[in-house]
Amino acid sequence: MLNIGVIGYGYWGPNLARNIGSIESASLVSVCDLNPDVLKRVSGIYPNIEVTTDFNEIISSPKTDAVAIATPVFTHYELAKKALENGKHVFVEKPFTSSVPQAEELIELADKKNLTIMVDHTFLFTGAVRKIKELISEGVLGNLYYFDSTRVNLGLFQHDINVIWDLAPHDFSIMDYVVEEKPTAVAATGVSHFNGKENIAYVTVYFPNSMIGHFNVNWMSPVKVRNTLIGGDKKMLVWNDLESDEKIKIYDKGVEVTTPESIYDLLISYRSGDVWSPKINQTEALKLEAEYFVDCVTNNKTPFNDGMAGLRVVKILEATNKSLRKRGETIPL
Amino acid sequence: MLNIGVIGYGYWGPNLARNIGSIESASLVSVCDLNPDVLKRVSGIYPNIEVTTDFNEIISSPKTDAVAIATPVFTHYELAKKALENGKHVFVEKPFTSSVPQAEELIELADKKNLTIMVDHTFLFTGAVRKIKELISEGVLGNLYYFDSTRVNLGLFQHDINVIWDLAPHDFSIMDYVVEEKPTAVAATGVSHFNGKENIAYVTVYFPNSMIGHFNVNWMSPVKVRNTLIGGDKKMLVWNDLESDEKIKIYDKGVEVTTPESIYDLLISYRSGDVWSPKINQTEALKLEAEYFVDCVTNNKTPFNDGMAGLRVVKILEATNKSLRKRGETIPL
Amino acid sequence: MLNIGVIGYGYWGPNLARNIGSIESASLVSVCDLNPDVLKRVSGIYPNIEVTTDFNEIISSPKTDAVAIATPVFTHYELAKKALENGKHVFVEKPFTSSVPQAEELIELADKKNLTIMVDHTFLFTGAVRKIKELISEGVLGNLYYFDSTRVNLGLFQHDINVIWDLAPHDFSIMDYVVEEKPTAVAATGVSHFNGKENIAYVTVYFPNSMIGHFNVNWMSPVKVRNTLIGGDKKMLVWNDLESDEKIKIYDKGVEVTTPESIYDLLISYRSGDVWSPKINQTEALKLEAEYFVDCVTNNKTPFNDGMAGLRVVKILEATNKSLRKRGETIPL
Amino acid sequence: MLNIGVIGYGYWGPNLARNIGSIESASLVSVCDLNPDVLKRVSGIYPNIEVTTDFNEIISSPKTDAVAIATPVFTHYELAKKALENGKHVFVEKPFTSSVPQAEELIELADKKNLTIMVDHTFLFTGAVRKIKELISEGVLGNLYYFDSTRVNLGLFQHDINVIWDLAPHDFSIMDYVVEEKPTAVAATGVSHFNGKENIAYVTVYFPNSMIGHFNVNWMSPVKVRNTLIGGDKKMLVWNDLESDEKIKIYDKGVEVTTPESIYDLLISYRSGDVWSPKINQTEALKLEAEYFVDCVTNNKTPFNDGMAGLRVVKILEATNKSLRKRGETIPL
Repeated sequence: MLNIGVIGYGYWGPNLARNIGSIESASLVSVCDLNPDVLKRVSGIYPNIEVTTDFNEIISSPKTDAVAIATPVFTHYELAKKALENGKHVFVEKPFTSSVPQAEELIELADKKNLTIMVDHTFLFTGAVRKIKELISEGVLGNLYYFDSTRVNLGLFQHDINVIWDLAPHDFSIMDYVVEEKPTAVAATGVSHFNGKENIAYVTVYFPNSMIGHFNVNWMSPVKVRNTLIGGDKKMLVWNDLESDEKIKIYDKGVEVTTPESIYDLLISYRSGDVWSPKINQTEALKLEAEYFVDCVTNNKTPFNDGMAGLRVVKILEATNKSLRKRGETIPL
Repeated sequence: MLNIGVIGYGYWGPNLARNIGSIESASLVSVCDLNPDVLKRVSGIYPNIEVTTDFNEIISSPKTDAVAIATPVFTHYELAKKALENGKHVFVEKPFTSSVPQAEELIELADKKNLTIMVDHTFLFTGAVRKIKELISEGVLGNLYYFDSTRVNLGLFQHDINVIWDLAPHDFSIMDYVVEEKPTAVAATGVSHFNGKENIAYVTVYFPNSMIGHFNVNWMSPVKVRNTLIGGDKKMLVWNDLESDEKIKIYDKGVEVTTPESIYDLLISYRSGDVWSPKINQTEALKLEAEYFVDCVTNNKTPFNDGMAGLRVVKILEATNKSLRKRGETIPL
Repeated sequence: MLNIGVIGYGYWGPNLARNIGSIESASLVSVCDLNPDVLKRVSGIYPNIEVTTDFNEIISSPKTDAVAIATPVFTHYELAKKALENGKHVFVEKPFTSSVPQAEELIELADKKNLTIMVDHTFLFTGAVRKIKELISEGVLGNLYYFDSTRVNLGLFQHDINVIWDLAPHDFSIMDYVVEEKPTAVAATGVSHFNGKENIAYVTVYFPNSMIGHFNVNWMSPVKVRNTLIGGDKKMLVWNDLESDEKIKIYDKGVEVTTPESIYDLLISYRSGDVWSPKINQTEALKLEAEYFVDCVTNNKTPFNDGMAGLRVVKILEATNKSLRKRGETIPL
Repeated sequence: MLNIGVIGYGYWGPNLARNIGSIESASLVSVCDLNPDVLKRVSGIYPNIEVTTDFNEIISSPKTDAVAIATPVFTHYELAKKALENGKHVFVEKPFTSSVPQAEELIELADKKNLTIMVDHTFLFTGAVRKIKELISEGVLGNLYYFDSTRVNLGLFQHDINVIWDLAPHDFSIMDYVVEEKPTAVAATGVSHFNGKENIAYVTVYFPNSMIGHFNVNWMSPVKVRNTLIGGDKKMLVWNDLESDEKIKIYDKGVEVTTPESIYDLLISYRSGDVWSPKINQTEALKLEAEYFVDCVTNNKTPFNDGMAGLRVVKILEATNKSLRKRGETIPL
């Protein structure tokens, strides 16, 4: 039985608590939040667990085996570090940390203490992303040309981070998961209309081969869009996460290139065939992820969404900061 | 009666010829194309006009008052120049020219000879763009936050230009038309998979105020998308040009910002109201544009889509070339 | 404080219990279900209420002021009757009863005892139906030509009732609510593929004026459709309940008829203008309905969705049975 | 070389003329229309053909081998009869005739004279319907449960026929083509708001097995819908003819029934798998049909859309008239 405490009971914490509470081999033992009213609500739902406004109580408690951190990004490093120092396994919201050195330090600390870090890249546990991973791994799409994502909606503005740090970690972690090659450079543009934090931004990611990634994130769109296009030389894929039934469509479409003598005569023809929408597993992603966390900790497995995976995302995020400051210049990773 | 010759009878030329032929106060007098088979087809449809493989015949003919140029971009400058030198008014495909100096020279030449240049920014004559212009001019959207366009499809690859020069002139000319402010800088990223010409690209355009423009153009998308979002502080607009009935939707949505003492406490709230889709004029845009060309020439009016408008688009295009070479660096306009 | 017991904790009962439990001026005091495992689950969620497999305990308990009945249709009459006889107010699932005489008897009994019957026509408390009612009442649509509804999906097959009794009560109650005129006759066609109960059916409803209603209900559709078209002589409306954002669209479209001398020369022209999608209240319908029930009982108000409203729906349902037996013959109401 | 005359140059005639004119082994030799202005327009486009306001000229001309009749329904019988009597093959718009006896007489006459009748059921030559036919014939859908079609839009009101005779022949001919079983009975309901001809109608068609057909036709819908659902026991199909790319979707969805001892315990479970959208041939249907007509006449083949196919559609249409007069009563075929 793995005893888990949840730190932070705002937007995501309740989902963590609920899913942890539903795992047979784990137990939700405590919740920490700075707001006493929130804690009263927690006690109403989970009468038998400890509640506290002081995270140290959870982190230092011998009853706790692991903590799940669902607090603002700028607190992740301190909380995770103390938890690890106290011998607790750590499940932490995305993005992992506010900087690359913080992430590296936590990874090293966990390594030394043989503790598990799992970064909550929830989308990697959805049926849609699992199916995309499978399709790419099995070569259905062929060699990839691009990964193009649009994730826009109205709000919710964050105070401490810009729209890239808020929305793009989803897409960076998905790209990291489904694409085998690792990116080499990043360019970002954007604008802030209110508080100095970009609320609209565009990120280009380069790969060693000629694949390109692009990410359109926006807190000011009147319509919600969750759309990812992935083009390969065999097939192309569109993932619309707002579709209830046919989230993924695979297009038997492509470009055939025959190179004749001169490049100017390059012949490009088009192939257009069937469209296919595979059935997607509908199990709640966070439930699968929470079970996977318990499994990894219990059986001493390294999760694929470990600190290293979190670090790879933070590296891209940090590079977007630099590129934004240099007005779009490409930053090597 | 304005006598017009058409140079280039490939993809767009037939549409030009048909629309010119249908104007009461104009006359289609000649067509030039390098392919004799094409000219045979032209004679079948228009038995009474001259056809030739030599554009000089059209440009120097005393019977011709104006020429409509629908040839590859790299030929625009030479053809337009000769036409102007021969005293002919010029209607020329987008993009206007291959470079800024070419455009400037043509404008000066036309000025000197009191001839009209019209650049074929067809979209400015669609009911949808007219309605967007009207909504922005009348202040319905308020101050603009962003102009975000996606124009992607499978093919058609061009040999002489990249995807930005092929697709984005539509969007740059539309933005130029509907947004009063003029852009100050451009950043572009992209990739070429085949022949050295980018087939996927992303362009960010900066404005003196905090408005931002972004353009996603792609020849390798399995799905066709023609989507533009324009966000203002009063209303927001989505234009989906592939919708047959409700191309434009105006969202009474927005962000309300109240600035308290510290910036960290900035309060942002959301407004969400009705959606409204105005009726759009369905007249064929090219027909309206051809009539407007005849009207401008006949009555010596300066068209709003004149050489200067064409030049403003070429300036952005040229800046994207520079930015691509410098891997995304922002290029001042 | 109104004390309410819930009878039947299958698909809908948990929603009733949750909403009743959340009303300040009401109290969920008991739940009855035939399945002891279900009752254990209930006790887990609501530790302080009584649970029982015997509905008589609830119906006869002096602690109970009202009962909410969420059991199969064929049990409604008996349960409601006993509840009323024991002086309890009744909230009952749709359809109200299995037959017109049953409904009439319950209405009379409640009248005599000055008790409230509310039939759970939940859709009447949705923002969408409220908006449609408002638009029709205020004359925005003008005189109505038709009410055409499609409600199809895959499953869930019911054992005791056919697809009309399962799905169409929603639409009949909505039509009854938003259309002032009352229907005069009904024709129904359909087919059963499995157990003698129609799983696909079509119902036409006639009105005294030339308005017509039509209902397409199907348990065997691969796609879920919830679509209602309402045509008036001023405006026309489409309600797609599966849209998350723009559920209702109002079309400024119509037919203009000018009657010249001979009917053969009747001139019909078309009007096509803007489309408008009003903002819809998103509050959970059942929450509003439960509050309304408590308000009606407490303040002795007659609900608009009272027994009479339930009876009007049962009358149409009963007429569809007759029409189906007579293979589509029109049955007067 | 088959010489064909076109009678009637209103909405559909121009398409017939254009397609006939494009067939190598056929020749458009004449056009008849009552309106002299129309004939002037025809001469402008086809300078070398005969034009006349008197159909007898075409029907009796020795130069004519076949006629294509695109006039109002009530004239089909007389025109086709005279054409057949004069030894001309007949291609005639849908619906074939105004009544069953007319159709039977024409079929007999053509038989006696060994002439071809082809009824213009254009949809049978579309890629979509061809694909549906193929899927059903090959058993992909399994045994059919239902054929449910919605064909609604705003206008165009016809003066001489009601909305069933105008729109439903498309659907009846498609059902006749793709479903092997033939219908046994028909029930129809509807209403007329203007001139005594129903402008909204609903038709149910029964088959010897438990398959059911239903047709929703409406001239007063603010939105255009062209939607057909076909449910089989193996797969289900949705055809949305307004989709440009994915007109047909095949759902691996269904119902599994296991019959235990009592019918009340009938177990029904649901299967939900992939969705698949096959590539559809995009060739213009009327072009294929016109070529097929020329081929059938030239090579003395009996077309599948012959007079008998036309008659089967007219039989259903005539039955809807009877059912409408008897307010929905089922009429045996």
